[in-house]
Amino acid sequence: MKNLQTMRWEGHCLALIDQTRLPHEESWVECHTAEAVADAIARMVVRGAPAIGVAAAFGLALAAQKVCDETRENAWRSITQAARGLRQARPTAVNLSWAVDRLLKRLAAIPGEGAQLASGALSEAKAVYEHDARINRLIGHFGLEVIPDGSQVLTHCNAGALATADYGTALGILRAAREAGRRLHVWVDETRPYWQGARLTAWELVNMGIDATLICDNMAGHFMKLGRIDRVIVGADRIALNGDTANKIGTYTLGVLAAAHEIPLFVAAPLSTIDPTCAHGDSIPIEERPTEELTHVHGKRVAANGIAVANPGFDVTPARYITGIVTEIGVLSPPFEPAITSALKAQHTLA
Amino acid sequence: MKNLQTMRWEGHCLALIDQTRLPHEESWVECHTAEAVADAIARMVVRGAPAIGVAAAFGLALAAQKVCDETRENAWRSITQAARGLRQARPTAVNLSWAVDRLLKRLAAIPGEGAQLASGALSEAKAVYEHDARINRLIGHFGLEVIPDGSQVLTHCNAGALATADYGTALGILRAAREAGRRLHVWVDETRPYWQGARLTAWELVNMGIDATLICDNMAGHFMKLGRIDRVIVGADRIALNGDTANKIGTYTLGVLAAAHEIPLFVAAPLSTIDPTCAHGDSIPIEERPTEELTHVHGKRVAANGIAVANPGFDVTPARYITGIVTEIGVLSPPFEPAITSALKAQHTLA
Repeated sequence: MKNLQTMRWEGHCLALIDQTRLPHEESWVECHTAEAVADAIARMVVRGAPAIGVAAAFGLALAAQKVCDETRENAWRSITQAARGLRQARPTAVNLSWAVDRLLKRLAAIPGEGAQLASGALSEAKAVYEHDARINRLIGHFGLEVIPDGSQVLTHCNAGALATADYGTALGILRAAREAGRRLHVWVDETRPYWQGARLTAWELVNMGIDATLICDNMAGHFMKLGRIDRVIVGADRIALNGDTANKIGTYTLGVLAAAHEIPLFVAAPLSTIDPTCAHGDSIPIEERPTEELTHVHGKRVAANGIAVANPGFDVTPARYITGIVTEIGVLSPPFEPAITSALKAQHTLA
Repeated sequence: MKNLQTMRWEGHCLALIDQTRLPHEESWVECHTAEAVADAIARMVVRGAPAIGVAAAFGLALAAQKVCDETRENAWRSITQAARGLRQARPTAVNLSWAVDRLLKRLAAIPGEGAQLASGALSEAKAVYEHDARINRLIGHFGLEVIPDGSQVLTHCNAGALATADYGTALGILRAAREAGRRLHVWVDETRPYWQGARLTAWELVNMGIDATLICDNMAGHFMKLGRIDRVIVGADRIALNGDTANKIGTYTLGVLAAAHEIPLFVAAPLSTIDPTCAHGDSIPIEERPTEELTHVHGKRVAANGIAVANPGFDVTPARYITGIVTEIGVLSPPFEPAITSALKAQHTLA
């Protein structure tokens, strides 16, 4: 199996595999500044909630490197300015803010001048990377309980190795099931308009040798009705305290369909995806993406001229449609509010 | 408003607007034989259940022209052979068989040799064309009762002028509502994999000056949840006697979503779409289309190499998700079985 790499720290820059060109072309984008990282996040060179969190951490490390000869005060000013730019790169995934907050908190506790901050930022960014790679394996491990032998699993968008530092969340669970010798068939929604399913998830599944079939997003209901899908598993960009989950546009439709067919739907995500400031899904900001993502494919127009376009990048699936949330400390079950509160407490105790 | 034409009888051939190239290029395909018409139907140069019925009628007329110097027996053999080829061009839309049956029945009743059959076939094909254009206006008229002023209507695929001889079924109703001065906003599903929504419906709506917004198929649930869609209207490829309706893949998903959001869903179709031999939807054959429709766009690969693909062209929406069926004799309401039986009887009485 080809080992997929989402990003590499090169000592002086962050190299990102260009996910806008995968799987047809494997090229790397080198980011030498925090601004370049923010731009790569906005352009979806790197995407997936956990991955953009890790990339943002390295972005701050780059900002800190630039000011390593400065006084603490000057360095801090530059670093917090870079933090603002990174936070604004994409509005929905909370892992971005989570990683930025984690770095700033660590730096605030480090004594010294710019040099110490630069060194502290880099080691913390590396820790964020290692943390994500490690907890994805834990998510895979705990997820085994929701993917029995013979499962027919539908997944949407890409919550694979490419969406994380390594291994993947939703796809990480399928990978763990495969490694545990379980038979499974995966249905992959192509995930318009950005084709994360057709391009990235399909690519990862082919590389992993997992039996998989690509379908259009509008076919999910049909195959559920035929009894060919018996569970749905997706990632998450932000989870509210009550369990409402923002994820790639189309996930809500799958939630309604799964409920109507009495099929369980699982969300796989690290605890860093939970937004403790967000009581329920209605307060999650939904990013509006460029209209060209709908009107053009490969730079060539598909849609009729003159038609207006709506392109929300995410939707919110209410907690009632979610059977369980697979995290690095186990599978959370409804009612999610107490389960999430306990999980966040347990995480603080562990940390 | 630009008047859209789906097909033209040219005396010696049937000219079809090439719907695979619309709206970016307006080119016409000339069919000189029944085989060429069957091929155009299979390749979706002409598509939409009513339109392929009309095209098939002209296809039979072309077959009859070729044998106008033959004896009745020889001519009949050629015509029925052409009929078999046309019927097999696409399996799901029943209007195809309906039109072929109508012509064969008419020809069987005409005395004479090849010349008489040829002349009879052409006048009957023209009658099928005129019939479709006329009843679509009736569907539009009766459909006014389901589209009140201020409606926010979602439609899927293309059930417009291009899917019929003229005017359209589902889009014909929106056109009638517009002509009646009603304000409406139309949401257009792009309709993967063939983009009938993005290409054809969007084009027709822009031409008609109707306020419309293009969305990805997977966004329908999101906008229903936000209260931005208050009814769904679609065409049909085959309706069973109990009201179960085969239509473009994705319609079933909209049925589930509409029911979950308590939004009415209407089917607009001529009575020729009802299959009297079909008791319920499970017996409707579903066409499997080429995998390239998913893997490639504009001839360029989108999906990862090596991924398997499923591409059912249609799905079946159970009658319980359908609020009403708008036909040329009025809106049929549940329970559909008696309503459809009465409608078919009324039609025979009228004819």
